[in-house]
Amino acid sequence: MNTFIGVVLEGTRIVIAEITPEGNIMQSKTYLSAFFNQESALSMIVDSLHDFESSQGWKERPLAIGVGLIGRVDPVNGVWFHMDPDWSQAINFAEAISNEFHVPCFIDNDVKCGANAVRKWGYGKNTQDFIYLYVGTGIAASIVSNGVLLRGANYNAGEVGHLRVGVQVGVRCPCGRMDCVESIASMMGIDRCARFLRPYYETRLHFPDKDTMISADEVFRLARAGDPLCAKLVGNASEALANLIMNLVRVSDPDTVILGGEMVADGFLIEEIRRHLQPVTMRFVTNGVVLTKLNPRLINLLGAASIAMDGVNSK
Amino acid sequence: MNTFIGVVLEGTRIVIAEITPEGNIMQSKTYLSAFFNQESALSMIVDSLHDFESSQGWKERPLAIGVGLIGRVDPVNGVWFHMDPDWSQAINFAEAISNEFHVPCFIDNDVKCGANAVRKWGYGKNTQDFIYLYVGTGIAASIVSNGVLLRGANYNAGEVGHLRVGVQVGVRCPCGRMDCVESIASMMGIDRCARFLRPYYETRLHFPDKDTMISADEVFRLARAGDPLCAKLVGNASEALANLIMNLVRVSDPDTVILGGEMVADGFLIEEIRRHLQPVTMRFVTNGVVLTKLNPRLINLLGAASIAMDGVNSK
Repeated sequence: MNTFIGVVLEGTRIVIAEITPEGNIMQSKTYLSAFFNQESALSMIVDSLHDFESSQGWKERPLAIGVGLIGRVDPVNGVWFHMDPDWSQAINFAEAISNEFHVPCFIDNDVKCGANAVRKWGYGKNTQDFIYLYVGTGIAASIVSNGVLLRGANYNAGEVGHLRVGVQVGVRCPCGRMDCVESIASMMGIDRCARFLRPYYETRLHFPDKDTMISADEVFRLARAGDPLCAKLVGNASEALANLIMNLVRVSDPDTVILGGEMVADGFLIEEIRRHLQPVTMRFVTNGVVLTKLNPRLINLLGAASIAMDGVNSK
Repeated sequence: MNTFIGVVLEGTRIVIAEITPEGNIMQSKTYLSAFFNQESALSMIVDSLHDFESSQGWKERPLAIGVGLIGRVDPVNGVWFHMDPDWSQAINFAEAISNEFHVPCFIDNDVKCGANAVRKWGYGKNTQDFIYLYVGTGIAASIVSNGVLLRGANYNAGEVGHLRVGVQVGVRCPCGRMDCVESIASMMGIDRCARFLRPYYETRLHFPDKDTMISADEVFRLARAGDPLCAKLVGNASEALANLIMNLVRVSDPDTVILGGEMVADGFLIEEIRRHLQPVTMRFVTNGVVLTKLNPRLINLLGAASIAMDGVNSK
């Protein structure tokens, strides 16, 4: 049997997996990482892939490598434009990887990879108009309209973490604006808001030092137990995500909104979100707001492998 | 020479014009109207067209009629689905008009007509990724991505007047949500906010009775003169529109944002909007936020004629 390699680059780690054509994860390994620019990220991915091969080996013969990257990616030419507004150096990422490992490499933005997984193995099979909303360390969306994934004039469509949605906490986003939804409702946002709101609410939440992110799972658990700060954090996050979803529904008129990512993985937040959804706004979203049936924590990794499969098949 | 008839149905009026293939308006007439459902709107449009023909006559031989309608329209089958969430009765609008006047009739949503005019005669000629944002009685957008106009699963894409964008006044939108951008930054919104905020700010603004809309032109004039209420209204509206634009830029990543509609027609508001735009968010909008060179007050009417032209040419 042939397999495919999926790689995702996240804010603080690289995950590599060997995945079957049916989307089953045969083995995977997580590498903690820190990188300062795209060249160093590329070199860390190369090192990690070499380690994976030497320490674990492949179960089968991998046909191709798919990599999900942060930021702006040109999937046709395999070029990674940038990972951050401040770090911008277009590099021929796919070519560098395939030269190193002698198999074809395909790349795309991580959340756009996730949407591809949704189309191949998830709810996306049955709809031409859906939104895949990723809520993890950050927030981003893939919008599919009439069967086509929006990419934009500069491969930057779907960066919806930077929408303002009407929930005001008073936190500044790294992008420079106040109260972007990502600053309120992502893992990063929960961490930021918890520290910002700590003086104003009683809490039993554990605050690690600033290099370690506050555990969203702990925030959810304490919120359910009535902890005032955590209840406020969950209330803000769920209202902000509901408003984001309703904003996006007005823009692209999907029939299905599919949630993925670590923040929604345990099924708690989606129930809170649904309470804030307004029927008039949501009336055409006939399949509703649903949690992906694919593993919400690994969906972008599955997607990275899925673009490798599609890439090989289209050659 | 042949001509085309453009018709737009707006909240309180019907405008009819005879337009050349180059987009010149040879003659036009405005009919004040009130209608309660789609059947009555159809019958008013039929009556108005008959009046136009008998009172003015056509300058040339009209080849087709194009009608821009409020709400959800299926342009392929000529079906008008609904004008309002509460009034929904799909009718075969195009067929009814073409049977009555013995020329082909084509229909679309009014703001989607406007985007077609932008592509045919305006800035849209040079870009595959743009947003046409209409700010008039209400607010809506046409989003073109990779050359394709977004329509959505139910012909409802682009109803962006109902986005929440982070400006909070405390007004309830007819849709049921608080502080939708349309309730703050459209002609309707200016009227609503002026009445709502009147007790809190000094002003020399004239308040007509509730059946007559407050003049946005007067609000702009007084704001420039330092009137406290009007300055607040313009400040809220321009910040809300800037936030709406930045939200939409994050969703679809256009290279151009084109404004049209009565609210932006005199060029004042766009300057105020630009002050609130943040460079990081706008960095890929390389052609900027521009006022349409087509008449901003008549752009949807031009668009109605333009869909008639395209309809005839594609047959």
